[in-house]
Amino acid sequence: MSHNTFGHLFRVTTWGESHGPALGCVVDGCPPGIPLTAEEIQVWLDQRRPGQGKFVTQRQEPDAVKILSGVFEDDRTGGQVTTGTPISLMIENVDQRSRDYSEIATAFRPGHADYAYFAKYGVRDYRGGGRQSARETAARVAAGAIARKILGDAITVRGALVQIGPHKVDRARWDWAQVTENPFWCPDPDMVAVWEEHLETVRKAGSSTGAVVEVEATGVPAGWGAPIYGKLDAELAGALMSINAAKGVEIGAGFDAAALSGEENADEMRAGNDGPLFLSNNAGGVLGGISTGQSVVARVAFKPTSSILTLRRSINESNAEIELRTKGRHDPCVGIRGTPVAEAMVACVLADAFLRHRAQTGGGAFAPGVDGRR
Amino acid sequence: MSHNTFGHLFRVTTWGESHGPALGCVVDGCPPGIPLTAEEIQVWLDQRRPGQGKFVTQRQEPDAVKILSGVFEDDRTGGQVTTGTPISLMIENVDQRSRDYSEIATAFRPGHADYAYFAKYGVRDYRGGGRQSARETAARVAAGAIARKILGDAITVRGALVQIGPHKVDRARWDWAQVTENPFWCPDPDMVAVWEEHLETVRKAGSSTGAVVEVEATGVPAGWGAPIYGKLDAELAGALMSINAAKGVEIGAGFDAAALSGEENADEMRAGNDGPLFLSNNAGGVLGGISTGQSVVARVAFKPTSSILTLRRSINESNAEIELRTKGRHDPCVGIRGTPVAEAMVACVLADAFLRHRAQTGGGAFAPGVDGRR
Amino acid sequence: MSHNTFGHLFRVTTWGESHGPALGCVVDGCPPGIPLTAEEIQVWLDQRRPGQGKFVTQRQEPDAVKILSGVFEDDRTGGQVTTGTPISLMIENVDQRSRDYSEIATAFRPGHADYAYFAKYGVRDYRGGGRQSARETAARVAAGAIARKILGDAITVRGALVQIGPHKVDRARWDWAQVTENPFWCPDPDMVAVWEEHLETVRKAGSSTGAVVEVEATGVPAGWGAPIYGKLDAELAGALMSINAAKGVEIGAGFDAAALSGEENADEMRAGNDGPLFLSNNAGGVLGGISTGQSVVARVAFKPTSSILTLRRSINESNAEIELRTKGRHDPCVGIRGTPVAEAMVACVLADAFLRHRAQTGGGAFAPGVDGRR
Amino acid sequence: MSHNTFGHLFRVTTWGESHGPALGCVVDGCPPGIPLTAEEIQVWLDQRRPGQGKFVTQRQEPDAVKILSGVFEDDRTGGQVTTGTPISLMIENVDQRSRDYSEIATAFRPGHADYAYFAKYGVRDYRGGGRQSARETAARVAAGAIARKILGDAITVRGALVQIGPHKVDRARWDWAQVTENPFWCPDPDMVAVWEEHLETVRKAGSSTGAVVEVEATGVPAGWGAPIYGKLDAELAGALMSINAAKGVEIGAGFDAAALSGEENADEMRAGNDGPLFLSNNAGGVLGGISTGQSVVARVAFKPTSSILTLRRSINESNAEIELRTKGRHDPCVGIRGTPVAEAMVACVLADAFLRHRAQTGGGAFAPGVDGRR
Repeated sequence: MSHNTFGHLFRVTTWGESHGPALGCVVDGCPPGIPLTAEEIQVWLDQRRPGQGKFVTQRQEPDAVKILSGVFEDDRTGGQVTTGTPISLMIENVDQRSRDYSEIATAFRPGHADYAYFAKYGVRDYRGGGRQSARETAARVAAGAIARKILGDAITVRGALVQIGPHKVDRARWDWAQVTENPFWCPDPDMVAVWEEHLETVRKAGSSTGAVVEVEATGVPAGWGAPIYGKLDAELAGALMSINAAKGVEIGAGFDAAALSGEENADEMRAGNDGPLFLSNNAGGVLGGISTGQSVVARVAFKPTSSILTLRRSINESNAEIELRTKGRHDPCVGIRGTPVAEAMVACVLADAFLRHRAQTGGGAFAPGVDGRR
Repeated sequence: MSHNTFGHLFRVTTWGESHGPALGCVVDGCPPGIPLTAEEIQVWLDQRRPGQGKFVTQRQEPDAVKILSGVFEDDRTGGQVTTGTPISLMIENVDQRSRDYSEIATAFRPGHADYAYFAKYGVRDYRGGGRQSARETAARVAAGAIARKILGDAITVRGALVQIGPHKVDRARWDWAQVTENPFWCPDPDMVAVWEEHLETVRKAGSSTGAVVEVEATGVPAGWGAPIYGKLDAELAGALMSINAAKGVEIGAGFDAAALSGEENADEMRAGNDGPLFLSNNAGGVLGGISTGQSVVARVAFKPTSSILTLRRSINESNAEIELRTKGRHDPCVGIRGTPVAEAMVACVLADAFLRHRAQTGGGAFAPGVDGRR
Repeated sequence: MSHNTFGHLFRVTTWGESHGPALGCVVDGCPPGIPLTAEEIQVWLDQRRPGQGKFVTQRQEPDAVKILSGVFEDDRTGGQVTTGTPISLMIENVDQRSRDYSEIATAFRPGHADYAYFAKYGVRDYRGGGRQSARETAARVAAGAIARKILGDAITVRGALVQIGPHKVDRARWDWAQVTENPFWCPDPDMVAVWEEHLETVRKAGSSTGAVVEVEATGVPAGWGAPIYGKLDAELAGALMSINAAKGVEIGAGFDAAALSGEENADEMRAGNDGPLFLSNNAGGVLGGISTGQSVVARVAFKPTSSILTLRRSINESNAEIELRTKGRHDPCVGIRGTPVAEAMVACVLADAFLRHRAQTGGGAFAPGVDGRR
Repeated sequence: MSHNTFGHLFRVTTWGESHGPALGCVVDGCPPGIPLTAEEIQVWLDQRRPGQGKFVTQRQEPDAVKILSGVFEDDRTGGQVTTGTPISLMIENVDQRSRDYSEIATAFRPGHADYAYFAKYGVRDYRGGGRQSARETAARVAAGAIARKILGDAITVRGALVQIGPHKVDRARWDWAQVTENPFWCPDPDMVAVWEEHLETVRKAGSSTGAVVEVEATGVPAGWGAPIYGKLDAELAGALMSINAAKGVEIGAGFDAAALSGEENADEMRAGNDGPLFLSNNAGGVLGGISTGQSVVARVAFKPTSSILTLRRSINESNAEIELRTKGRHDPCVGIRGTPVAEAMVACVLADAFLRHRAQTGGGAFAPGVDGRR
């Protein structure tokens, strides 16, 4: 994991600032021959796109993606496919309002990375947060769209919000079909109104609130990931924690596992046709860093947006003590638009794990009860 | 992060199985001229060493480390120093009892990685868990000892257990001096007896229990880490989640941040002499992936040990349904010996971040109010 | 070295096809605060630019570079500087004539990578060679311009052609000032007319010819590079061999060293003020993979352009035997425009070595006769 | 390529000094289920082993390799196979004579890396050259033995010396069967006596001589390697140049290609059953960085051993001017024992390329004239 590149074999290098001319990424290592159009990527970008409702930033960005390289028509099918060479994606910024930010050109907003960038680099593009802006996550979502194409239809990566502020969903009411029926990716229909009221209160107060996103990947075969420092769960943890505002990551039972007994925690097995049938999934689909064939389940906690309208104490580049409020157009709850980003990161980790597994073993998995076995 | 190598510039490659002749690591990228003896590494290994008390495994392993390369006498001081070439460390296994494991040669223990390894590789060293054994973490602790030497005396990395089973410490009673006064790395003196009784119950029942470890690094200067995919907190998350039995990772306020408001969460600043004075540390010392000069605070949740004496349902390599209990000598709570391991991983991440920061910027940090500023 | 990324800490990821909308690169790891404008990069691109004279391709490409990210005004100087975040560079393609290539859509040109790409990927952008086109080297030159800025004025990286076809320069007449006075980067004024006549003959015959480029880096301090698999000369060899049409690489005396005796080859030393004065430079400035403070000297051999007008035997995707000539606009001697590319690769390797050296050691070098020594 | 690790997916990390207790390597990324014993590795180490004849160093090292991890019995075959976890190999040093080197503890031998290590690190293990010693190449040969097992019997990697000092073999007399019939890996039976006389002269004079090694890999399928910075030839160039004393690398026609015309150089093709039949092999089996199915051919030039008995001018750590001769036990021509080392590096590059190709494409190659084609 270098500074701006993610992944080992499926490699995503992102670039761009919030108020620069454009942002984008280069996706390297994609297998050849995979059908891919800009429209297929756009579908996912539209989910993360700002300006869609009153609970997300009002910045109007079409986030229209262009494919600049790495695809070509397949002379057999006539369709556009990946060629195995790097796929360069570009999204132009169109609705920058840099004047909103002149006040923070030399001030450090509390909870933001302003001071950290200053301390490290001495110079920073303060407009919209520059490189620290969550606009960078558009490139992640675009890359995630390619990762999904690599994973194929047998694997589904889907996310839901399970908590906003202090309000957690009731898992007994979990319904994946609900997730696309409300603006919050909420799987619990009874929670939608609660969140709506909470967010309305937060928004009117010029405040913000945190959230927890859960991502589930179904259809992941056993054998992906690798021991020790290539563990699938460790890669997921690093990937999810690299998202702006993330403060915690869990796999399976997560922190709750600390309070369990060994009998409660370890998932028992019965014989299945193609690997064990597990009787529970506290492991979140990963044991010893390797997938088991169960659904891979991860959660990521997002802190509340640091851009709020309340006056807060801080300092500036001259070391003067100041009070400032953060104007501009901001999400009151970054977790909402963080959901498709978290999905994208899980998809990227899985695509990378797939290629790494195929490299070392040829792909596939050994199955109990089968001779010759792969 | 390759399969068995950790880090980018401070690179640790570990090898070895639980019941093989030895285990060890190669530490590459260490700066030259750093005083280093086997005794200095041994101090930390002794903290993780098994066989020290009734709440950890009874396997007797001296875990005596040998330095096979990478050090030489300094002709100026006469002392032994690093030469900048790879440091090979080896720890011989002496107390293997492989016969304990014949029963699981072809059976998959619930909660263990037995099935996952089988599915991926088709062959596995089942003795003591082979490569999946937590004995591998001895190599991490040894590498962490070198990382501490690189970080120097100005940086302290220390860990504590903050939860065993359902019992959490009371942070109002936190006292770092207590941590070395009990066998649990417990900072809350009133909690020691509670944990002792809980563990005694667990041990007698042949059961196990989970735990949460908190690691704090003080003295880390501002500017370490890097945006996007080299974020200090993302690296910490990946590092901690790579430890055996880890299921969750948090930075600063962690999952609790999800329930906070923006006003509560963002740490305010006042002017200090060398960077801001923060009025709280919900960030856990990291903003935008870059250290801020506050203490870096991370937590890792460990699931209960999967090796328990209760009969559990499972299958074997022939896909037959079985019931098995896991004999052998095991820790009833891996979090206890996990504490020095978590510390070591944090130390390794920080040493790597130090070298990466020095590479790109020359080291140091810009300070508010200073002209010419680094 | 991943497929489309070069370097370890100074990392260049290139993308783009010959006849796609654009090509470019993302330069990651650049130190912050370095003055950088598009004009400074353009200077070097103009040296490699096609369409400048009858001995290079007639394709008219302005190769105008845009900086899309990674720079910002420095509030202290008002000038534009690097911010430490990824620098995205884009060069639009403007003079594609894809119809020239329809004939080779399914045919494999001898000496080209057509068949190799087909065998590996099954699909390829045949227009102008797609990704295998030497147009990709424009991105290398652009990255090299940034590398030069990192290296600073004390280090000069300059190249010369030392052989075209069978005609080698006479080193006794070597004059660096001549290199920019002729279209061939020729340091030997008497050789210019010979090469001109040779190339005129080659061009009229629709043929092509090979060449050897020598690159010298002066001012490189001692201590850069690293033993074993990070050797400066090994990195240079990989870098130069990665240029299109390269078939051989030498450091210092190179292949001639094989015929020397130990007495002739090993460079003797006398005491200097800041490291030894070497009495010869057969080593090419590198010993044990580490720079010695002498000039770093490397050579790269380019094969003749494979695109020639003579009919050659080949096959096509249907496995039919064919004869084809390669139309289109091609350089009769790729070594000419290869000279700035080779320079750029050497500059990139050195910038990477500088950062890696600074990471491990803090920078600088120990000097003989100095106490405390760095 | 990090400092002491070679390869991307097939990764070799070497450690150890010439006069330390041992040297070794950790081989990571090896596929599971490959039969592997220490004896199979030993076969190749014995080829490189010192003390075997008067034209190589008289140091007596059995170079007995131990496998410390990464193998286990296969319960289906009973044989020992790789498990997919890291393979740790160790070779103990037994015949160190460190007293031979006290004279150079603070002196810099011309042509050696003594000064370079001093300048970079300030401290160095001078005994036998420490880390710069060619003893490190034993670990390369051991790793190469594992690489060969991965490549399987269909691929043969074999080397020959084609030049010692000024004396080149006559390619018209090339006979691979001769290579193992003389102590020089010489494929030209008429050259053996010439080399023997030359080496006898060199040895008696206390001098040394250079050499050129050619390595050929037959059976490499089309499609291995990758464009741009993952080129198979670039990887070979870096790998071969990383061997001690290497000064030049060529692929196929190499430097001679510079003097060829396009008609002479580009290898023509006729239809074959499984890819083209090439009518020549100037490319050395690689086009655009990707294998073509022809034999891969590389050459590496070694400089003469720098350790000679003639007095040479130099300086020491105090910057005093001195004259020194290099005692100790040295090879008069490192190219001889360099032959198995060069073979090993080619094998390692190919094993890595195989895994990388399988990762991105699933393995295999598209063939002309075949529908569905892989």
